[in-house]
Amino acid sequence: MSFESKSQDPASQEMLQLAADKGMETIWDRYEAMQPQCGFGSTGLCCTNCLQGPCRIDPFGEGPSEGICGVRDYSVVARNLVRTIVGGTASHSDHARHVAELLREVAAGHIEGYEVKDEEKLMKVANKLGLETEGKDVNELTKEVAEEAVGNFIGYHGEEMSFLKPMVPEIRYELFKECDIIATGINDVINQAIHRTAMGMDADPVNLIFGGLKAALADFVGCTIGTDLSDIFFGTPQVVESEANLGVLDENAVNLVVHGHEPVLSEKVIETARALEDEAKEAGAENGINVVGICCTGNELLMRQGAPLVANYASQELAIMTGAADAMVVDIQCIMPSLKNVTDCFHTELITTMPHVKIPGARHIQFSDTTADQDAEEIVRTAIDAYGRRNPDTVNIPDHKSKLMAGFSVEALMDAFSKINEEEPISVITDAIAAGDIRGIAVFAGCNNVKTPQDRNHVEVAKELAKNDVLCVATGCVANAFGKNGLLLPEAVEKYAGEGLKKFFSEAADALGMELPLILHMGSCVDNSRAVELGTAIANYLGVDIGDLPLVASAPEAMHEKAVSIGSWAVSLGLPTHVGVDVPITGSSLVTEVGTKIAKDVLDGYFIIEKDPKVAAEKLIAEIDERNWLLEMKAKAKEA
Amino acid sequence: MSFESKSQDPASQEMLQLAADKGMETIWDRYEAMQPQCGFGSTGLCCTNCLQGPCRIDPFGEGPSEGICGVRDYSVVARNLVRTIVGGTASHSDHARHVAELLREVAAGHIEGYEVKDEEKLMKVANKLGLETEGKDVNELTKEVAEEAVGNFIGYHGEEMSFLKPMVPEIRYELFKECDIIATGINDVINQAIHRTAMGMDADPVNLIFGGLKAALADFVGCTIGTDLSDIFFGTPQVVESEANLGVLDENAVNLVVHGHEPVLSEKVIETARALEDEAKEAGAENGINVVGICCTGNELLMRQGAPLVANYASQELAIMTGAADAMVVDIQCIMPSLKNVTDCFHTELITTMPHVKIPGARHIQFSDTTADQDAEEIVRTAIDAYGRRNPDTVNIPDHKSKLMAGFSVEALMDAFSKINEEEPISVITDAIAAGDIRGIAVFAGCNNVKTPQDRNHVEVAKELAKNDVLCVATGCVANAFGKNGLLLPEAVEKYAGEGLKKFFSEAADALGMELPLILHMGSCVDNSRAVELGTAIANYLGVDIGDLPLVASAPEAMHEKAVSIGSWAVSLGLPTHVGVDVPITGSSLVTEVGTKIAKDVLDGYFIIEKDPKVAAEKLIAEIDERNWLLEMKAKAKEA
Repeated sequence: MSFESKSQDPASQEMLQLAADKGMETIWDRYEAMQPQCGFGSTGLCCTNCLQGPCRIDPFGEGPSEGICGVRDYSVVARNLVRTIVGGTASHSDHARHVAELLREVAAGHIEGYEVKDEEKLMKVANKLGLETEGKDVNELTKEVAEEAVGNFIGYHGEEMSFLKPMVPEIRYELFKECDIIATGINDVINQAIHRTAMGMDADPVNLIFGGLKAALADFVGCTIGTDLSDIFFGTPQVVESEANLGVLDENAVNLVVHGHEPVLSEKVIETARALEDEAKEAGAENGINVVGICCTGNELLMRQGAPLVANYASQELAIMTGAADAMVVDIQCIMPSLKNVTDCFHTELITTMPHVKIPGARHIQFSDTTADQDAEEIVRTAIDAYGRRNPDTVNIPDHKSKLMAGFSVEALMDAFSKINEEEPISVITDAIAAGDIRGIAVFAGCNNVKTPQDRNHVEVAKELAKNDVLCVATGCVANAFGKNGLLLPEAVEKYAGEGLKKFFSEAADALGMELPLILHMGSCVDNSRAVELGTAIANYLGVDIGDLPLVASAPEAMHEKAVSIGSWAVSLGLPTHVGVDVPITGSSLVTEVGTKIAKDVLDGYFIIEKDPKVAAEKLIAEIDERNWLLEMKAKAKEA
Repeated sequence: MSFESKSQDPASQEMLQLAADKGMETIWDRYEAMQPQCGFGSTGLCCTNCLQGPCRIDPFGEGPSEGICGVRDYSVVARNLVRTIVGGTASHSDHARHVAELLREVAAGHIEGYEVKDEEKLMKVANKLGLETEGKDVNELTKEVAEEAVGNFIGYHGEEMSFLKPMVPEIRYELFKECDIIATGINDVINQAIHRTAMGMDADPVNLIFGGLKAALADFVGCTIGTDLSDIFFGTPQVVESEANLGVLDENAVNLVVHGHEPVLSEKVIETARALEDEAKEAGAENGINVVGICCTGNELLMRQGAPLVANYASQELAIMTGAADAMVVDIQCIMPSLKNVTDCFHTELITTMPHVKIPGARHIQFSDTTADQDAEEIVRTAIDAYGRRNPDTVNIPDHKSKLMAGFSVEALMDAFSKINEEEPISVITDAIAAGDIRGIAVFAGCNNVKTPQDRNHVEVAKELAKNDVLCVATGCVANAFGKNGLLLPEAVEKYAGEGLKKFFSEAADALGMELPLILHMGSCVDNSRAVELGTAIANYLGVDIGDLPLVASAPEAMHEKAVSIGSWAVSLGLPTHVGVDVPITGSSLVTEVGTKIAKDVLDGYFIIEKDPKVAAEKLIAEIDERNWLLEMKAKAKEA
C-alpha cells in the first residue's frame, strides 16, 4: 500500500503501514471517516452565534439566502473569519502573556527558577521601545520591558501598542493608522472583536474585516512579544546543527518528547534532563535522556538548545507508535486529543502540564512558574520510570532522519553578514537583490493540514521558489518539513537553488567561512515576527515600505486559527500571502474578493488561495517580479 | 389565519397579518425557511475551530465519534459552550467598558456632554468598593470609581475583580475561590477562554466548563459595572409609569425609535428630542417627538425617563411595518440586519451609530462621546426630516398597548420598604418569606427566541409562579413581554397572584400608600445584577448563602450568547436556572449531566432545560419548596 497521498514523509509512510498492519487509528483515518465534510462550514456559511440558529445560508440560491435574523452571507462569512482570527490572536498572545508575566515576576524577585540570559537582547528590546537605558541595571530594565509588554495587552489608555511601531517602516505604521487597525491593546481588541461579531452587531463585511485586521495586528504584537521575551529569557538563537524526523528517537535512551509551544516549560525540562542523565543511565538507558520536540516547543528547543525535531503536527501520533517515546510532555496548542488513544496502546506516559490544557485520562503534572524545577524533575523522572516499562518488541523507529541547520534569528544572520559588511550587514541581502542574485524573499509559515499530503506542498512550493532564486525563510511545522527533507542544509543549495541564489550562497560562504543552508529556519510560529524584523530592516535600509519589497509569504498547509491570524497580519503588512488549503470564506464572493483582490489596493498584501504548489509558486514569483519592476521604476523616477 | 403559533402578542399578530397581506418577510418566515436546522450545530457537535474541519460528531454512533484531531463529543460541546459564554461576556463587558471609560474621561474633564447625576449612587458604589470617601469631592471619587471599574477589565496584577466580592455573600465568594472561577480581569478571561478552546488545547470537559464559569462570572462583573456606572451617570431608577407595545407609536408625533443596549446614546437622544420638540411641531408633528424603545436601550430609557417600550426583540421589524416609525436609531446588540430590508419599504431612516456596528445601506451617523450633543442633534433632525416623508396611507399602528410600572432598582424598592421598616427595609421581603406569604423569588431574564411563540412562555411561566405565591422580578425582553401583558401593573395582582402573594402586596400597599405591580421590572439585561444585589441583601440579612435561598431564575426564550452567560453565572451564584429553549449541549450526555445535575452538588445552581412552561414552573416551585424546607431544617438545627 502506498501512503503518498497521505504523506510525503517516508518515515510517516513507514509508520502508516505499521498503523494499518496493527489496526491503529491515525489522523488520516479520521479525516477519511469525516468525509464528506459539511459544505456550509467549509465555506463559512454556517452561523451558530445565537440560540435561534444554527443558520445555514445556501450559496446556490436554492435554500435560505439569509439567516433567521436576516444576516446575509457576507456578514456570516466575515464574522466567522473575524472569530477565527481572534482564536489565533488569543492563542499567540496568551502564550506571550505568560512569558511577559513571568519576566515581570522574575524581575520583581518573586520567582527564582528563571533568569535573564541574554542581556544584549534585553538592551536591544529596551532601545526598540525607546526606554531610557542609561544607568539602569539589568533588573530595572527587565522590569520596565516586562511592564511595557504587559501594557501592550492592557490598553485602555488610548495609547497604541508600543511593540508594534518599531517593527514596521514608518510609512506602513501610518497606513495602519489611516485604516484604523491599531488596537489600544491585545486584550481590548479580542474583547471588541468577539463583541462586534455577536448576534445583532456588525453586519458590514468590510467594517468587520478591518476589525479582524485590528485583531490580526494585535496577534503580530503578541508574536513579537513572545519572541523578544523568550530571547531575553533563554537566549537569542544562534546557528545550530541538529536533526529531524522520527529517526532521531534513540532506542538506547529515555526518549522524552516535548510537544506544544511554550519554551518556559521545555527549557526547564531539557535543563533538568541534562542534570538527571545519570539517573537515566542507572535505569538502563545507556545514552541517557534524549529530549526531542514536536511542533513549536520543538522549534524553540531546536533553535536555542539544538534539540532534534521528532515530528511536525501531522505525525505526532506516529511518534508514539514507534513504541520508543517514553513520555510525551505537552504544554499548549496543536495537541491532538487522540494522543491518549495512542499512548493507551504503549507504555508512553502522556503528561499534560498546563492548568488550561487537560486531556481526560492523561497524567497531569501541573507545571507552575514558582515550582518549575520540582515540576520539571517530576516530569523527567516520570519519563525515566516509563522507560523501564518500555516493551522492546513494540519498538519500531523508522530509519529516517536528516541533518539540519537552524537558529537563524535576525541577530544570528546579521552577526554573520557583519563579516561581509560590518557597518551595514543587511546590505548583503539588499545588494544581492539589487544584483538580481536574490529575486525575492519568501517567508514560509504554518502547519500541517491533513487535507493535503503531509509536507508535500511545503517542499514543492519551496523548491520551485528556490529554483527561481527566491531566498526562503521558514518557521513552525513547515520549517520542520524542510528539515526532514534536507532543505535546511547547505547541500540543498547545489541541488535546488537557481543560478543567482547559488551565486549568493557561494559568495556568502566564501566571505563567512561558513556555508548557509538553502532555507533559513527562523524558529517557532511566534517567530514569524523575526521574518518581519528582517523585512523591515531591508525596507528601512532601502527607504521603502515593507509592502514594496519583493517579499511574499506562503502557508501551504495552514491549519490552526493561529495560521489565519498570521496570514491576516502578513497581508496587513503588505505581503502577498499564499494559502494552500481552502479557507472558509468562499461562501461570500464579496469577502473572497476583498481578501484576494481588493486588499492589494489598500494594503499591498492580499491572499492567494491556491492548492497547486507549482501554480502557487508561479503566482508568488509573478508578484515578486512585479514588485522588483515597480521598485526599479520608482528608483528611476527618483533619479530623474 | 391565526398567528398564535408565532406570537402571543395581539399587536404582533395583527402586524403579521399585514406582513402576510403585503408579502413582507419577517423573522418568522426566515425561521420557517431555515427548517430543518442542522442537528450537529443544534446539539453542539460541530467543530470549526481549525481549517481541517468542519468536523461533525455523530451522536448516534453511525458516523464519526471523534473529530479529525481525535476530539471527542464532550470536548467539542464544552468548547462550543465556553465560546458561547465568552460571546456574552464580551458583549456585556464591552458595553460596560464604554461606560467606564466615559466616566473616566468625564472625571478627567476631557468630555463635557455628560455629568454625574447621581452622587448618592456614586457614594454607594465607592463604599461598596471599600474606597476612602472622606474628604473627597465628587470628581475625585468619580475618577477613583472609574479607575476601579477599568481595573476590573485589566487584571494582570493577580488582584481579583473588585466589583465581584461585595455583590455576593462571603460564603459564596469563598466557594468561587475554591472552584477557581474568579478571573483576574474580564479581558484576561476572555483571552484565556478563547485560547483554551482553540485546536489542540483543553480537551477535559469539566476543566473547560469551569473555565466557562470563570468567563461567566466576569460577565456578571461586566453587568454590575454596566448597571452601577449607568446609574451614576443617568440616575438610579425610581418607580415610573409608562406603556408598552406597538400602540405607543403616535400618529401625530415624530416617532423616534431607539434600539440596542447602551444608555449613553439614548439618554442623549431623548434629551435632545425634548430640546427640539418645537422643530418637530414646526414640521407638522403636533405631538412633537415620541421617543420609544426596543430591547434594552428601551428598558434603560423606560427605567430612567419613562419612555414607552414599543417592541421587544422579535417584533423589531414589525415596529417599522407600522409605517409610523420615522427613524430607528440603533446602537449595539440584538439588531436584526433585516431591518434594512424593512426600512427599504417605508420612509423610515435606519441609523447606525457605533463604529463597530454598521449595516450595509443604512445611514451611519457616528456617535462619539466627545461630540455627543451634535451627533444626537443630527440624529433627531434626521428623524424629523423623515417624518416629512411619511406616507399616511401606509400607517398601520395596532391599537394595542398596556400601561405599566417600572423603575424597580433595589434602591427604589428599599426606599419604598423603608416606610415599613426604616432600619431594615429588606425585612419586608424576608418576613413575608418567613410568613409563607412569599414562597420564593423568581428572576426572569432574557430574550425572545423565534423557536417558541413570542412572549407566550414568558407569560405562562410567570403566571404559574405568581399563582403559587412566587414574587417575580424581570429584566430585558421578558420584562417587556410582561409589560405588554399588563403584568407590570397592580391590577395583575388581583388577577394572577396566589393568596399569600396577594396578602403581601395588599399589606405593602396599605403601608406604602402605593400599590406595587405583580412583577417588578428591574431594567435591562445588565440589570440582572440588580436581582443579585437583592438576593445577596436577603441572604446576608438571613445569614445564609445566596444558593440557600428560595431564589430561582428563568429565561423562557433565551436567544443571545449574553443569555447563556447570564444563565451560567446565575448557576454559579447558586440559582436553579430554567431555560425554555434547546441549548446546544445535548450532543454530550456528560456536559448535559454536569450542567443539569452535577452542578447542583458543587454550586447549588443548575440548569433546568424545559420547553413546557407549566412543567418548568412546577420544577422551579419544587426547587423553591426544597430550599424552604432546607432553610427551615437549618434554622431548627441552629436553635437546637
